[in-house]
Amino acid sequence: MSESFELHPDLARDGIEVMDLRLSRLLLMNDAAWPWLVLVPQRPNKKDFHDLDPMDQYRVCDEITICSQALSRLFSPDKVNVAALGNMTPQLHIHVIARFSDDPAWPGPVWGKQAMQPYPAHQLEERVKALHQELKHPL
Amino acid sequence: MSESFELHPDLARDGIEVMDLRLSRLLLMNDAAWPWLVLVPQRPNKKDFHDLDPMDQYRVCDEITICSQALSRLFSPDKVNVAALGNMTPQLHIHVIARFSDDPAWPGPVWGKQAMQPYPAHQLEERVKALHQELKHPL
Repeated sequence: MSESFELHPDLARDGIEVMDLRLSRLLLMNDAAWPWLVLVPQRPNKKDFHDLDPMDQYRVCDEITICSQALSRLFSPDKVNVAALGNMTPQLHIHVIARFSDDPAWPGPVWGKQAMQPYPAHQLEERVKALHQELKHPL
Repeated sequence: MSESFELHPDLARDGIEVMDLRLSRLLLMNDAAWPWLVLVPQRPNKKDFHDLDPMDQYRVCDEITICSQALSRLFSPDKVNVAALGNMTPQLHIHVIARFSDDPAWPGPVWGKQAMQPYPAHQLEERVKALHQELKHPL
């Protein structure tokens, strides 16, 4: 097992790196169907949420909150879904997803609902820029 | 909006009360397909995880950890899924679910996969008792 953090290839493939927060690498999932963030705590060899030590768990809470608040300010969602699943990708990562009552999976969960719909390049750039703007002094 | 905590009727219908932890009411979902716990922070009028104040978020982390560890000791799952979704039931609740690579929804999420399969009475009683035993001095 590696002693240093490396982003899992599944997450590197599906996510766009937005920035590093104090603990987590923040990704935007490249799926235009939902404003969908993923927090990846930069600790090696963590699979489940309870594998993190308590201080790291609390830090993840703070990062979930700033991401949720940023999504709320930017998109005014009906609900924010937060989840650590990872049945397919065995590196701890936490989804923070803006949900809308007219989105394609509502009220069900987003996973497995439909194929990812990559952003058009200009929209991806705008979205990452908007997230940077919201999160540049997050903590 | 109510000023005191009351369990949402959906959760009262689908869950069996196991015990009150320091912050959350702990429910066992009455679905024999998965060892499936739900934590309901006993605060009124909370919908999203980030609606909790930071100290309550940290407390929820501690409670997720003790529930995950109890599930791990009792059932040796392949993965523990943790999620705050709540698109259907607008009271903040956190799922903590033991997952197995041969369970009916693996590797997908459990929600919406199949109708709930209520426990036979004797099995329900045994499971609640086992959880009590694991959690009686949790913190």
